Formats: sequence, structure tokens, C-alpha cells
Amino acid sequence: MPKLRLGWALVRVRLAGICNTDVEILRGYHRFRGTPGHEFVGEVTDVRGVSAATKKKWLGRRVCGEINVSCSAYGFQPMCKFCQRGWKTHCARRTVLGIIGLDGAFAENLTLPLENLHTVSENVSDEQAVFVEPLAAACEILEQVNVGKRGIAAIVGDGKLAQLIGRVLAKRLFMVGMFGKHRKKLNLAGAAGAAIKWVQGDATDFKRIRQTFPLVVEATGSPSGLALAQHITEPRGTLVLKSTFYGAAPVETWPIVVKEITVVGSRCGPFDKALALLRAGNVDPRDLITRTFPLAEAATAIRFAQRPCVMKVLLKP
Amino acid sequence: MPKLRLGWALVRVRLAGICNTDVEILRGYHRFRGTPGHEFVGEVTDVRGVSAATKKKWLGRRVCGEINVSCSAYGFQPMCKFCQRGWKTHCARRTVLGIIGLDGAFAENLTLPLENLHTVSENVSDEQAVFVEPLAAACEILEQVNVGKRGIAAIVGDGKLAQLIGRVLAKRLFMVGMFGKHRKKLNLAGAAGAAIKWVQGDATDFKRIRQTFPLVVEATGSPSGLALAQHITEPRGTLVLKSTFYGAAPVETWPIVVKEITVVGSRCGPFDKALALLRAGNVDPRDLITRTFPLAEAATAIRFAQRPCVMKVLLKP
Repeated sequence: MPKLRLGWALVRVRLAGICNTDVEILRGYHRFRGTPGHEFVGEVTDVRGVSAATKKKWLGRRVCGEINVSCSAYGFQPMCKFCQRGWKTHCARRTVLGIIGLDGAFAENLTLPLENLHTVSENVSDEQAVFVEPLAAACEILEQVNVGKRGIAAIVGDGKLAQLIGRVLAKRLFMVGMFGKHRKKLNLAGAAGAAIKWVQGDATDFKRIRQTFPLVVEATGSPSGLALAQHITEPRGTLVLKSTFYGAAPVETWPIVVKEITVVGSRCGPFDKALALLRAGNVDPRDLITRTFPLAEAATAIRFAQRPCVMKVLLKP
Repeated sequence: MPKLRLGWALVRVRLAGICNTDVEILRGYHRFRGTPGHEFVGEVTDVRGVSAATKKKWLGRRVCGEINVSCSAYGFQPMCKFCQRGWKTHCARRTVLGIIGLDGAFAENLTLPLENLHTVSENVSDEQAVFVEPLAAACEILEQVNVGKRGIAAIVGDGKLAQLIGRVLAKRLFMVGMFGKHRKKLNLAGAAGAAIKWVQGDATDFKRIRQTFPLVVEATGSPSGLALAQHITEPRGTLVLKSTFYGAAPVETWPIVVKEITVVGSRCGPFDKALALLRAGNVDPRDLITRTFPLAEAATAIRFAQRPCVMKVLLKP
């Protein structure tokens, strides 16, 4: 059983999701030696250092949790300059659930500060709530970029995150184009909303594309997507980067300069907005689940998650 | 003598500047087969297709000229969607003086549309006016980014463009840090303004830098600068890209995503603002001139311009 700090909760994991970042971590990036996993829905089973009333309020609650743990949760005073600005996801001293210095969700239990937890409404199932973390990351784009109401956008990539981004943007835009390699994955996107139009092809096909977009999201999770994303971003357009693969890749940066593109790096997002989308039924990610494995078969599940055309794989403790 | 279109002027070149882009062009980028050169100051010697009064107004005028020639100058109707937005530097059909489809300034004479020309005041010398094009490119940063009034910024690079950017930013910011390799060049920057602080070193030294900046400008003209620029940009900071070297370079993009950096590609800028800086004496670039060659020795001059620690080289027809 993990030890509890004051103001932290013990959470029994009900369901956890496997993300590409977990695969990267298992390959040795971040030099993280603990338990991976940062997408979860769970139930609060203990809380420490709070009033009896607060404890009573939380015990038994179904929750998901923000993964960046910042100055305030560790009692650091003064807080770092990013926490002072309210940018907790950029805390200079942060730990990150299952990624940096804090054991994650591929376990029976995990710990997080109460301030990181969000209650999951009854009408949102575990299978939906386990998507809150990546769905929040998709919503972050709307926090950073004024997408307008009648515009169009393109997404490069057809994976799990790309699919969630497609669904979030399709709620706000007239048309969202998805550029991907896999017909099966793209079919999923097409079925998710009439505003999503998709194009199947590879880098060679895409070089012939002449349509450009004022907003493009790169979410392939691989270096190859960036060149295409630049190619289809119109002059003075915005290109949102979502892929966090590690290592260097050959990139031509001159199109960014010549077209005066604004490239916006985008990471973790607002859990409240993601939960609101699920609660209202505006986004339903359940069709993205390929298979659920018992926690004991985590190693097999992670291998399975890397197979072609496998989408979200879940672990059930 | 070049032929004149209606609304275009013939300009006798008084002085032209050699830019790194010219060197790239001579290496075969852009597949440009004409006369290079896009930094100049000259004198109008003929105008075609305008009233006698307009012609009289322009003849003999000392001018510099914007290098992007857009739909309106060629009489294209309807104009492209970027010209319709007033973004002439992004015109979809543009030619660019000495770079794309239009003979440039390393010649006795050049042609440009009247709408591209700007009069140079008497108190601005030829040696100053020849810097208007790159100085305008430096000013473009202020058009794109709200730099604030009391902030700090860093510039990666110590070359010609980096030096002009340093001088422009130093007029608006509390402190500008310059990171470069060459002590001699950095001394020039330090002498140009008390707000400019410089650090000499190479990539290895800079990896140890812990200071970060809310605004960083990458202007090294080489791929190596980008990694350092990312390293010293603070979370949610802005990184302006000015380098337009061609070809792919190995780049790690994950820091952009993890720190949610906004990368802003920045190219040509406002000539009126650059001229105003020169007119008011707020920026004086003359100390950046290393040597002036006669036009007949252009080939020698371009080789000379590529030597280490040579700054601006000029050509005098």
C-alpha cells in the first residue's frame, strides 16, 4: 500500500488506459523506474490530513485525476513561478503520475492529491471516464487556439489521440479533415461525426495535396507527420503539435519561417471540460476500445497495444 | 535594360547588400536562375504607365523596395486570397526580388512596382538605407508578438540578422540576451546598446544554461540554434524562428510540446517601421558593414561574405 501525504487520497484503480507515452516510457524514455500508467478511473478509499467532513465527502467517490502534481500538493513555499501563475501543469517541481517520480495507474492502487481529483458523474461509465485524461489533452487545443466557429481544420494522424481531437474539433468547426494511413481507423473517425471527412494515404500521396488549412493538428505520434502538417498549413496558419515521441527526427523548418506559421505545442488539458463533454454525450470514446485485459496480463496488454490497428487497450485490476 | 510593366519603376542601384539567402540561392536553393540580390538602395530613373505628375514625383527619388511582388502589381484579377486579406508578402502568385522569378539587386538596374517602393529621407545615408530590408524583417517580430514593455528576451545567433533583431528589441525591452559563438561579433552587439548583454559559447556550454526567457529568437541561420533556443525558452514562452536554411536538420520536437512553446515563423516585415527607426536614429546599422566591393567583383565579394566573422558586405555598381 502506498503511503499517503497530507491532503492526498488513496485511489483504488477501476480501469486504466494504455497510452503511447507508456510504451515510450517502457523503452526507457524519461528514465522512469516506477509503475507506469496515467489514464484511469478509480474510487477513493482513503484520504489523509483533511477534516472528517471532507474525508466523508470523498470516500467511495468515483474519480479521475489530473496527472501533474505541483508545488502546493507537496507544500513547497514559495511556489515556483509557474504555480504562482496558476500553470500547475508546468510546475517546475512537478511529478507526473506514471511518468515522472510518481507511481502510476497500472496497479491496484495509486495516490494523488485531492486537488488533482475530479468526480465522475453517474451517467459517465468507467469505459468513458478512463478517456478523460487524453480527452482533456484534446480539449487543450481549444484553450490555446481561437478555432472560430465556422472554420475548418485538419488532423494529421488517425490514432487514439487524433480520434479524440477529431471529435472535440468536430463539435466546434464546420469541417474537420483527417489524414491517416489506416482505413480501419479512419472509418472509426468517419462514423463519429458527419463533420469529420477523412483521407487515406501515405506521405507520398499527401505531398500531392493542394488543399491547405488555417488550423492543422499534428497527432501522428511519429516524426513523419510534421512535414505533411507543415505542407497543408496555410500561410499565417496555426499548427498544433501533439506528438511527444522522443529523439531527434529530420525536420525542415524553413516552411515555418517562409509561411510564417505559428506552431503551438500542446500537452495536458482541462479535465472539467473533458468531463463535461462526456456527461453531455457530446463525445463518446467507447468505440475506440479494442480490448480490456486483466491487470495481471499488463505485459501482454502493452505488447498487444503496439500491434497495427489496435486502438485503446484497457487494464482492469 | 529590363523592360518595364505598367506601374513599375526602373531603379538604378546605388548600393546592394549580400545576405545569407543569396549564398543559399547561389548553392542552388529555390532553383533561381536570375540575378540575385534583394537588399538595396537606389534611385528611380524611369516609371511606366502613370500620370505625368506621378512620374515627376518619383523620378530621381532615392528609394528602397519591398521584395515580394504580389497580384496587384501583375494585374491579376481576382487577387489571391492572401492579397485579399492584405497579406502581400504571402501572395500565392508572388515573385520575390532576386529570389523567385524576378531579377535582383546585384546589377546596375532593377525593376519593381511603384507600390513596393519607399522613399528614403535625406538624413538616412545609402549605407543605412541598404539595411532596410533585413531591419524590416527584424521589426516583423514586433508585429507578430506582443513583446511587452519591460520584459526580457534572448537571441540565439550573432550574425547580421541577429544583430539587427538585438537592436530592435533593445529599444522595447528591459534586457536582451545574445547567445553567440564569436566574441568579435558579440562585441559589436554589446557596443550597440546597454540593454544588450551577451554570452559567448558553443552548444555544449549552452546546455548548462539554466536561465530561461519568455521570448527567444532563433537567428543563427543554421540548424544547431534551434535546440538551444528551445532549451532557453520557458514554459508557455514564445520562440520566434528567423533562420531560413534549406534542407532537413535533426530536431527534437518534444520540448515544444512538453513546454507548450509557441513557435512563430517570421519572414519579411514592415519597411515603414524600419525606415522610421533609421530616420529617428534609434537604430544605426553602419557598424555592421565589413567591406564594400565594386559590382564587377561580385563573385569575390560573395566568397568574402562567407568568411568567418565577416558581417555585412556591400556591392557598389
